[in-house]
Amino acid sequence: MKRQYRVGILGATGAVGQRFVSLLARHPWFEPVSLMASGKSKGKPYPEACLWHLDDPIPEYCSRLTVEACLPAEGLDLVFSGLDAGVAGSIETDFASFGTPVISNARTHRLVKDVPLIVPEINSEHLSLIESQKKRLNSEGFIVTNPNCSTIILSLALAPLQAKFGLEDVVVTTLQALSGAGYPGPGAMDILDNIIPYIPGEEEKIQTEPLKIFGTLSGNSIVPKRMNISARCHRVQVTDGHLLSVSVRLKQRPKPEEMIAAWQDYTPGIAGLQLPSLPSRSIRYTCVDNRPQPRLDRDSGNGMTIWIGRLRSCNVLDYHFSVLGHNTIRGAAGGSILVAELLAARNLIAGRCPLE
Amino acid sequence: MKRQYRVGILGATGAVGQRFVSLLARHPWFEPVSLMASGKSKGKPYPEACLWHLDDPIPEYCSRLTVEACLPAEGLDLVFSGLDAGVAGSIETDFASFGTPVISNARTHRLVKDVPLIVPEINSEHLSLIESQKKRLNSEGFIVTNPNCSTIILSLALAPLQAKFGLEDVVVTTLQALSGAGYPGPGAMDILDNIIPYIPGEEEKIQTEPLKIFGTLSGNSIVPKRMNISARCHRVQVTDGHLLSVSVRLKQRPKPEEMIAAWQDYTPGIAGLQLPSLPSRSIRYTCVDNRPQPRLDRDSGNGMTIWIGRLRSCNVLDYHFSVLGHNTIRGAAGGSILVAELLAARNLIAGRCPLE
Amino acid sequence: MKRQYRVGILGATGAVGQRFVSLLARHPWFEPVSLMASGKSKGKPYPEACLWHLDDPIPEYCSRLTVEACLPAEGLDLVFSGLDAGVAGSIETDFASFGTPVISNARTHRLVKDVPLIVPEINSEHLSLIESQKKRLNSEGFIVTNPNCSTIILSLALAPLQAKFGLEDVVVTTLQALSGAGYPGPGAMDILDNIIPYIPGEEEKIQTEPLKIFGTLSGNSIVPKRMNISARCHRVQVTDGHLLSVSVRLKQRPKPEEMIAAWQDYTPGIAGLQLPSLPSRSIRYTCVDNRPQPRLDRDSGNGMTIWIGRLRSCNVLDYHFSVLGHNTIRGAAGGSILVAELLAARNLIAGRCPLE
Amino acid sequence: MKRQYRVGILGATGAVGQRFVSLLARHPWFEPVSLMASGKSKGKPYPEACLWHLDDPIPEYCSRLTVEACLPAEGLDLVFSGLDAGVAGSIETDFASFGTPVISNARTHRLVKDVPLIVPEINSEHLSLIESQKKRLNSEGFIVTNPNCSTIILSLALAPLQAKFGLEDVVVTTLQALSGAGYPGPGAMDILDNIIPYIPGEEEKIQTEPLKIFGTLSGNSIVPKRMNISARCHRVQVTDGHLLSVSVRLKQRPKPEEMIAAWQDYTPGIAGLQLPSLPSRSIRYTCVDNRPQPRLDRDSGNGMTIWIGRLRSCNVLDYHFSVLGHNTIRGAAGGSILVAELLAARNLIAGRCPLE
Repeated sequence: MKRQYRVGILGATGAVGQRFVSLLARHPWFEPVSLMASGKSKGKPYPEACLWHLDDPIPEYCSRLTVEACLPAEGLDLVFSGLDAGVAGSIETDFASFGTPVISNARTHRLVKDVPLIVPEINSEHLSLIESQKKRLNSEGFIVTNPNCSTIILSLALAPLQAKFGLEDVVVTTLQALSGAGYPGPGAMDILDNIIPYIPGEEEKIQTEPLKIFGTLSGNSIVPKRMNISARCHRVQVTDGHLLSVSVRLKQRPKPEEMIAAWQDYTPGIAGLQLPSLPSRSIRYTCVDNRPQPRLDRDSGNGMTIWIGRLRSCNVLDYHFSVLGHNTIRGAAGGSILVAELLAARNLIAGRCPLE
Repeated sequence: MKRQYRVGILGATGAVGQRFVSLLARHPWFEPVSLMASGKSKGKPYPEACLWHLDDPIPEYCSRLTVEACLPAEGLDLVFSGLDAGVAGSIETDFASFGTPVISNARTHRLVKDVPLIVPEINSEHLSLIESQKKRLNSEGFIVTNPNCSTIILSLALAPLQAKFGLEDVVVTTLQALSGAGYPGPGAMDILDNIIPYIPGEEEKIQTEPLKIFGTLSGNSIVPKRMNISARCHRVQVTDGHLLSVSVRLKQRPKPEEMIAAWQDYTPGIAGLQLPSLPSRSIRYTCVDNRPQPRLDRDSGNGMTIWIGRLRSCNVLDYHFSVLGHNTIRGAAGGSILVAELLAARNLIAGRCPLE
Repeated sequence: MKRQYRVGILGATGAVGQRFVSLLARHPWFEPVSLMASGKSKGKPYPEACLWHLDDPIPEYCSRLTVEACLPAEGLDLVFSGLDAGVAGSIETDFASFGTPVISNARTHRLVKDVPLIVPEINSEHLSLIESQKKRLNSEGFIVTNPNCSTIILSLALAPLQAKFGLEDVVVTTLQALSGAGYPGPGAMDILDNIIPYIPGEEEKIQTEPLKIFGTLSGNSIVPKRMNISARCHRVQVTDGHLLSVSVRLKQRPKPEEMIAAWQDYTPGIAGLQLPSLPSRSIRYTCVDNRPQPRLDRDSGNGMTIWIGRLRSCNVLDYHFSVLGHNTIRGAAGGSILVAELLAARNLIAGRCPLE
Repeated sequence: MKRQYRVGILGATGAVGQRFVSLLARHPWFEPVSLMASGKSKGKPYPEACLWHLDDPIPEYCSRLTVEACLPAEGLDLVFSGLDAGVAGSIETDFASFGTPVISNARTHRLVKDVPLIVPEINSEHLSLIESQKKRLNSEGFIVTNPNCSTIILSLALAPLQAKFGLEDVVVTTLQALSGAGYPGPGAMDILDNIIPYIPGEEEKIQTEPLKIFGTLSGNSIVPKRMNISARCHRVQVTDGHLLSVSVRLKQRPKPEEMIAAWQDYTPGIAGLQLPSLPSRSIRYTCVDNRPQPRLDRDSGNGMTIWIGRLRSCNVLDYHFSVLGHNTIRGAAGGSILVAELLAARNLIAGRCPLE
């Protein structure tokens, strides 16, 4: 089958960028044709420009591509951005203004009024913000954003609870993997035999982004959901996979078996769209006492399934439980690709550039 | 100066036992004269019987001692017990019934009505339970218990808050070190690049033991404090040092600077007793964003000081903060030695057995 | 295509056994129909009997199989053995005597005179020992052995050198992964922030097994190659992948580029047999200064390719270089499957038991 | 007792610099009065300028010192240099030319003809090079260098063998700790679950520096010892402590018990000088099969004792054995302090600057 869309990757040599490069190697719809990164890599073949650090070997197609500058150009139906927040703002806006849809992982545009902040299973209807954004930019291009990695994983776990029982309060403590800090991660002497109880900016993102994700579309903007989230974040010595310890207070207090059923029976609205990256189950629940665990569960559903476990009554709020998800797949590159698939299925991106 | 008390160590070859052996090497009051362990080590010189695993070298005095069976005998003013809960129950009772005071680290007797559960800074007055216990046992011996390692560290952090503002609700997520699982810890393949979100029995201990510690002495028993504690425990890849992420709701809501002052100004009632293991400050607060950290802060005050940091408003309860303490020193052997020093200072153990 | 051979796995719940279970899930020739383990697992569905610890999820077919005792029975064309040396001896002999070919990973039979010790790329002609073994056992069954994990990886690296330049002396220091110790590996407190400079029995295996592998078939036995191997082994904190630091003295001293060419041009004699597990290249050489590395290179060729790098002149012997291979795939289960494929291609096992 | 010498520390905020700061806190002879580092730290109190990363808490005296620029000034009897090789060359020369003795850890001057490269136990007589160096510099100041960390540890292990049996060939593979790379070490994602088989420049240092250390003083220079050293270096996931796997060929082949006796009976010529940092035994031998280990043995003798173990016959050379030493204490700061003590004992530095 022919791949319909020609796509570019911004920040292709970085931690999230490499995941894009790897995950798109055999994607049925998207063909990566442009790998873009900062100036000093420009002009080199990708395998030379990039210090590849994933376990999976570097895909073959990369050797045919030369790293390009992050400049808008014809010939791209879509770009994925793994750029750091420091530079993402203007570059992503440039592409969108030029006419190219952008799926961004940076925090920069997430809370902008007419920029959708999307977890496809939860709030695909927020994509209708694109229309007003296009008008503002006076362009066919636009920006759609992927939430923070921990936010995506948390929000997915909360979605069935919100739908069935209503969320009021959430207290979450995260144990986050090294890859979330971007390659090469913290210094080894700082993290070996240690934990760092602080990730700059992370707690704020987890406390605010879900309010928009669970918010209500009203005309050209989102009315944030009213709920309280308290987050504390830790960097731990794990390569991939964020583990979250979560306590919740719900509007209606269900029985434990109803909680578990809500997760196990969860069927997102987009289930019928045949999106290639949507796992057969976005959420799984385990009854095994000492699971989920990062090393054993992060790759489930090709890294797109989150696992929940250890549901227990909470002596202060209603319930607590553990959530695990792959931070650079579900929480970043894989999540963005799923957003792009949703855009394609909804005809929000055009395969304007025929692939020869 | 002469050391006044002849002491024994039960379970001397285990993880907590080795810490006792190490910490007592140069203790000014207690002289270890009997190292006791399970049958198969019996009769061997301690250095042979024991697979020493602490960074500090094995103390010289150990080579003069032969491992003995865990049987009561004359000549001991006090025994420290690092026995596992599985065997601690009857052995510790045997010693107490025989007439020897026992400081126990096992969970077995902690919640028994007339057994004190002591954090010396917090509830030294609970030692008056010893009298009724002695009557029950019809012995000069008795058992005093040390709380669970995480409980000690948490309770110390809460003590100044309870004293000044009153505690209502506590939500705690722990990141616990390998040494807490006893030597040699979990299998390396289970914990490398991983987290185990479960420690059997741990959450229950943290949720119940502080209620007794902060309880009120009423005649011959303790009326537990009414408060709600919700705990979730994780085993992480750290050698020593438990890190706790804590949210609290208080009766009176202080300002942040009042919270910090409560910790920094904390002077326990026992401060005047000149106990050798009481650190100059039991609690310290750091304003550094990414502290406390296990590797950098656990050895503070010879492992007896806990560190608090990252005080922030909590969107659900009142405040959250991080707490760190050394689990096998403050949370086990060192904590027990401080209890014993308190007993000695209060004349609750007799130096009956003159040291020659 | 139909799978022709019905195979069993001995020790199916252990570290090597799980790799067999995983690697055979979609094997084109071999269908696992019997998972055998020690008594206490017997009768349980495999997923219950087994504490699965691989990153790859447990294959679906396992849930249809119940763990059986390690007893010979009709209906198996071949068994793979991941049994420990302690029990492998008699059980494997029982199967062979019963008439079932056995591919063993245990050390027990490796040095027995008429038992082939096979690295398929190197010494497939040694399989002719099977005939005399069958006579001795008076059976259609027989035992073929897989060398020690480090030995396989080392021998593969040495094979092109022996073929082209002749080997005289080898000094090797190994840095071996945790999985080589069998699940769950050493205690975490023994290996975190540490190295263990000793693996019982390992040095002896590396020093003797290659002499048989590189030996000459003479009638019904192997005349060991005369060469000197000196080995020192370390256990390090890596999940999978053994790294070897090797110095060699050769009969002819080639130029460095001839050394590299010997590895890069290496085409084993079995290359034409279309064995499914034979990687496109058994040996690869990297010119990158700081490679090979366990995490980045171990999965190459589905874990069947070894990597060599850092060739330099040695001031004492002729050359030194680094070798890396996946210890539980190339060095154990994957290596055994390749041996079995070789047996099948050579018509040394019969697909006697038709698959329905 | 009054401390006689006022000393400065160059590069005081770095990995080796912090060890100097810590080890000198209570030194009986040397009082650190000047902490010098690169420009941007200048003028800040040391505890602010420095991201302290040692387990031991930052010494109290540091809070009274402000970081100064690396410029020669009156008032220092001696400076210790923990500067990187990149900047050490000119700065150290400036101090020496100004008149201040310098003990350097950088590689820059180690092989300069009239610069002593000293392991105090081995070649204290090489200090006579100082005279000609002073003439060359036309100064009362001079530079003495500390060898590379692995070289110091290796040379100490070889010293008794050279003295008694004569060294011919040495093949060494190192497993080196993270702290050897300087704070904060390699990126965590590069080293977790991994080994890096390359340390730039390290192999060359180990292969050449011992030839000067074991060389013979001849007039104003050193005739290097003739011997062959082959080194391969690895970075592993250990905080402190380098472990070496060593094979040696000796002129005379002793029995194993003679090898062990050579180490155990080793008494360096400087033993009578009462140097405060010289451990009671510079070398210890262990018969325990799986020792020495970094975590358990590195702190022996306050980090100044090296451990040898696992002596076995080598099938290629004569013997092989394992060596362990603390890389930032014995192998860097502690080693330099011992050199300085030797200089003081030999009256090669003057306590010219009276301490008030």
